[in-house]
Amino acid sequence: MRATMIHGTRDIRVEDRPEPEIRLAGDAVVRVTAACVCGSDLWPYRGVRATEEPHPIGHEFVGVVEAVGDDVTAVKVGDFVVAPWAISCGECPPCRHGVQVACEHRAAWGGSDEQGLPVDGGQGERVRVPLANGTLVPVAGVTDPDEALTKSLLTLSDVMGTGHHAAVAAQVGPGRSVVIVGDGAVGLCAVLAAKRLGAERIIAMSRHEDRAAIARQFGATDVVAERGQEAAEKVRSILGGLLADSVLECVGTKESMEQAFACTRPGGSLGFVGVPAGGAELPIGTMFSKNISVGGGAASTREYLPELLADVLSGAINPGLVFDSVMPLEDAAEAYRAMDERRATKVMLVPAGAQR
Amino acid sequence: MRATMIHGTRDIRVEDRPEPEIRLAGDAVVRVTAACVCGSDLWPYRGVRATEEPHPIGHEFVGVVEAVGDDVTAVKVGDFVVAPWAISCGECPPCRHGVQVACEHRAAWGGSDEQGLPVDGGQGERVRVPLANGTLVPVAGVTDPDEALTKSLLTLSDVMGTGHHAAVAAQVGPGRSVVIVGDGAVGLCAVLAAKRLGAERIIAMSRHEDRAAIARQFGATDVVAERGQEAAEKVRSILGGLLADSVLECVGTKESMEQAFACTRPGGSLGFVGVPAGGAELPIGTMFSKNISVGGGAASTREYLPELLADVLSGAINPGLVFDSVMPLEDAAEAYRAMDERRATKVMLVPAGAQR
Repeated sequence: MRATMIHGTRDIRVEDRPEPEIRLAGDAVVRVTAACVCGSDLWPYRGVRATEEPHPIGHEFVGVVEAVGDDVTAVKVGDFVVAPWAISCGECPPCRHGVQVACEHRAAWGGSDEQGLPVDGGQGERVRVPLANGTLVPVAGVTDPDEALTKSLLTLSDVMGTGHHAAVAAQVGPGRSVVIVGDGAVGLCAVLAAKRLGAERIIAMSRHEDRAAIARQFGATDVVAERGQEAAEKVRSILGGLLADSVLECVGTKESMEQAFACTRPGGSLGFVGVPAGGAELPIGTMFSKNISVGGGAASTREYLPELLADVLSGAINPGLVFDSVMPLEDAAEAYRAMDERRATKVMLVPAGAQR
Repeated sequence: MRATMIHGTRDIRVEDRPEPEIRLAGDAVVRVTAACVCGSDLWPYRGVRATEEPHPIGHEFVGVVEAVGDDVTAVKVGDFVVAPWAISCGECPPCRHGVQVACEHRAAWGGSDEQGLPVDGGQGERVRVPLANGTLVPVAGVTDPDEALTKSLLTLSDVMGTGHHAAVAAQVGPGRSVVIVGDGAVGLCAVLAAKRLGAERIIAMSRHEDRAAIARQFGATDVVAERGQEAAEKVRSILGGLLADSVLECVGTKESMEQAFACTRPGGSLGFVGVPAGGAELPIGTMFSKNISVGGGAASTREYLPELLADVLSGAINPGLVFDSVMPLEDAAEAYRAMDERRATKVMLVPAGAQR
């Protein structure tokens, strides 16, 4: 089969790889109909995180179950499924607590499973899925989604669930004012999540008109282009002299975290889902004196999948709009370049023969 | 009048001071019937925080209103009142949000008010109270409480409300397992708060039998003497292999914060009320990967006073048990020594003539 490998900094290649097969009784094999590139895939791409040796890459995909091991009961051959970005057993204490990202049996796409067996990456034609019972979510009634639905289902693998996690952690709800820092796919999904959770005043931070337009479409009532302390002052003027009740940090840098804190009112809540990088830290003194609570972290999108899936299928939300580009899997290297150069917000990759 | 002054490291003196009087229309003058020494008073006492020039000290007191300014409507002459450790207006946005510690007009006991007028400390015979409408809480039906009730009312000024704040921030409730790090007056009150909020499994950390006994009396189901990673392993063995849902950090040091994080399960909540000192910091990586949320900070005890007061008056809680010593105000220096040397957990100071 064909699959995407990372060989090192800015070295993405689509190559022939061994066909996945059932290795353990809990495995499934999924034929990928659509995958995508994550902002976090850009770290090894840019060399921020070293690639020690070539390995498959990609952790967001949807597709059709082609085979299952003897212990698999949650999905069956022919099911259309969403694969969350984190593999999880569904049974250990963290999984039972809804924190599947801390699964005690965790395996990694493009890495290996608990038994040391290699696990395929998501940006390929097929994937061996360990712990399929806990990991995969079947999409009832759907066998061959069109491109628009495919895009929205694909966001449930990571970005929509991650944006939702930020909103939940920041206690977004009716009557709360919300600021979203970050206008990438996660930030845009966070806007949608805030709207879905009932927030009325939703301030998106963006200086890219195309992204701001999606933010408005997702429910942003205001868009702020300023940064840092100026952004906080703009928020204060929008909110009649107050800072925001809930702030969703969807970037992960030192600057974005500082901006997020500057926008949070005393007693407010900050949900952070941007993977901490570049010296991002939590100001314990400010949190103490202003009673700003902080939650979030890596999103257990598996936990949120059922409720968000229902809203996607009903048409209540359409997070797939964050995809502004679709390319054949074979063009994966170009997909990385386009996202690296910010020519694309999010690129969907479609294996040959998977098009509808 | 007589009042306690700090002149420098380990230099506490009870001196003659000017009689307080109404200076502003929002002022009240309170005759103090009981005050006490706070763990945080020990910082300047020990020289951890410098004392630039002599000033009055003490921020926890109860007493009787002797005079009020023209604008004071919340209390009247003769009312028995509790003074929270933080002065607050009750009307600015943070106050309306229940975060009175971030009051925009905040003044400080033993310091000055917004107008620059000096404010008395709580460890004295009388106190000018700025912003009396927002700050003071009258105790309905009580004019001359006995010593036991006085002690419990006095805890509402700071330690009981602060322990409660830790519990609220850590989302303590029925069905949640709770660990309390710290066996000072705040930690013990946090045990009581956890019990009051319905927690069934309450693990107190203490290696002092007298304090552990109070913790048990307050509702602790288990007491752990171990520290650091060993403490976390002990928690895990008590909770059948799990770490705690809610952890209340009531110390503020680097070590206690690390111990608190080590005891928190993935997805759990940590409430921190120990004033950060000695390099305490928040491990953003652990919080991200384990989804541990952190809230708390300086406690707006004014906000919690009505509900906790009702439970004190009904006898549902008896937080005054944290006082293991009562001394005349004139012995304030000895009270500081006793707490500094850990001969006392918490000392109540009684001005001459205030005894019942």
